Amino acid sequence: MSATTKVIKEVTAANDKYAASFTKGSLPMPPGRKFTVVTCMDARLDPAKALGLEEGDAHVIRNAGGRAKDALRSIIISQQLLGTQEILVIHHTDCGMLTFKDSELRQIVKDRFNGNEEHTEFLSFTNVEQSVRDDIKFIRDSKVVKPEIPISGWVYEVETGKIRSVSV
Amino acid sequence: MSATTKVIKEVTAANDKYAASFTKGSLPMPPGRKFTVVTCMDARLDPAKALGLEEGDAHVIRNAGGRAKDALRSIIISQQLLGTQEILVIHHTDCGMLTFKDSELRQIVKDRFNGNEEHTEFLSFTNVEQSVRDDIKFIRDSKVVKPEIPISGWVYEVETGKIRSVSV
Repeated sequence: MSATTKVIKEVTAANDKYAASFTKGSLPMPPGRKFTVVTCMDARLDPAKALGLEEGDAHVIRNAGGRAKDALRSIIISQQLLGTQEILVIHHTDCGMLTFKDSELRQIVKDRFNGNEEHTEFLSFTNVEQSVRDDIKFIRDSKVVKPEIPISGWVYEVETGKIRSVSV
Repeated sequence: MSATTKVIKEVTAANDKYAASFTKGSLPMPPGRKFTVVTCMDARLDPAKALGLEEGDAHVIRNAGGRAKDALRSIIISQQLLGTQEILVIHHTDCGMLTFKDSELRQIVKDRFNGNEEHTEFLSFTNVEQSVRDDIKFIRDSKVVKPEIPISGWVYEVETGKIRSVSV
């Protein structure tokens, strides 16, 4: 047992409530709506609420920026083993990835951890529409997603809760 | 504009509803509750509902299995740039990662994509408690997370909606 923190107390209390009225205990493993969302870890995004996902509907892959590079392993598993057939790449306005350069974060990690700078590619970007296009291209260029799989690009607006389409 | 699919029609309709009653347009970028969840992309998991997260509360990193290796870049950004100070690693029962061996999926990818087998490490596992322990160790061993940061391990039960603690 880990030491109990304030966060753990709050999270387990919330989970007790969730489990008390839980009715989704027999859903199948493959996503019912057969699609995968690739999006950012940002705290302001709730992909299930914002996109209308119920438990069992879709795979949701999240990382800093919603970058495809960190998502490719998961996309292969999602499609080749669990039958998903469509991808939505959703980046968002006011993303943390717009606020730094990789070289700056490398220096911060180097300074704070005495040179333990394991990860050197932080995948920051300067334009959120372009990062969506870049990531769709990355997935296409990987050649491990069938050409007929639709991949659409979106920007979620943290200011309005809306998603808008990115032309590819 | 991408071709409109059934999924896109449904997702945009759901998003219209979400945006129509959206009231969270001025949340700050750093997570208010200062923690990060690392969990699986599985469709049956809704981390926000299951853990009581509101928009703005916490970073949520998701990938196939909830593996730390794909999450480390994001964890560094979460902690060094956006001030989070605690990590919950949550894997789950009946995970797809328990159903195959890396070598099998490598062969599938090789067969289906004419040898375009870019990603060779799929991070499958055979025991969900052990995979949680392995991932906590991976994060600790990375030496890019301060030793005083609490990292707790959990298994989410897709059958009950409950999370249970994994002793480390």
